[in-house]
Amino acid sequence: MFQDHKDVLAMDEFMAAAIAEARQGLAEGGIPIGSVLVRDGVILSRGHNKRVQDAAPVMHAEIDCLHNAGRVGHYRGTVLYSTLMPCYLCAGAVVQFGIKKVIAGESATFPGARDFMESHGVDVIDLDLGECKTLMAEFIQRQPQLWQEDIGEL
Amino acid sequence: MFQDHKDVLAMDEFMAAAIAEARQGLAEGGIPIGSVLVRDGVILSRGHNKRVQDAAPVMHAEIDCLHNAGRVGHYRGTVLYSTLMPCYLCAGAVVQFGIKKVIAGESATFPGARDFMESHGVDVIDLDLGECKTLMAEFIQRQPQLWQEDIGEL
Repeated sequence: MFQDHKDVLAMDEFMAAAIAEARQGLAEGGIPIGSVLVRDGVILSRGHNKRVQDAAPVMHAEIDCLHNAGRVGHYRGTVLYSTLMPCYLCAGAVVQFGIKKVIAGESATFPGARDFMESHGVDVIDLDLGECKTLMAEFIQRQPQLWQEDIGEL
Repeated sequence: MFQDHKDVLAMDEFMAAAIAEARQGLAEGGIPIGSVLVRDGVILSRGHNKRVQDAAPVMHAEIDCLHNAGRVGHYRGTVLYSTLMPCYLCAGAVVQFGIKKVIAGESATFPGARDFMESHGVDVIDLDLGECKTLMAEFIQRQPQLWQEDIGEL
């Protein structure tokens, strides 16, 4: 009950939108990770992992989200939400594009590249949400090899 | 003459293929950076920067190349060629996917994320090719703002 209560408090509409993307990916038979890009309280783009659906290994949720945003010019003032702490690929995009804030749903499943982003001045927040952890735990239990493939550990 | 002579010696068929991709991108009105992914002496995929052509900011040459490779499973034994030293986005893909060797055409135009890759055990070779430097210098002179956009410095 405490976990659920904390989740409700910590989650905003943007993380809820990222989770909706993750659930859409799961419904498509894919890896349940979702992301949204926000500026000035508005969602600029949404994305989810497309490894399975599009046979697209680079289309991690955050990369798909940035891809869907198109040419926004600069990224000042943007916040990237992801249901899972970004890996080095997605963290590299954050650092290169100058995105200064990342909000992750959780990092218990995968620690990602938090230190790398922070070392480049990115403000990283980990909401540690039970809903995000459960999504990944159930997926990894069903398809451990697919998860290993996605993080480059096959 | 010495520069040209060195270039002929240092360039192999794979870097030549990456340069051909860069020139194709230029012909399409895009940013002239190309990449190929090689395993066991065979080109698995080719790519070039698609920011302009597809309004795709994440489609740096190396990301486009990895995207075009599709689901190769693991990346052991692969070598990623790029006409320009990979930026943090592309270097992040290299590190996350476990690509252990990167061969760049040059790093004079842009230092990229060589140190980051090397700190993660990636063998990075810089061929310092005049042809690659000239391609970028001519492009940046014509379209400096487009180049700033591509490296996140608008």
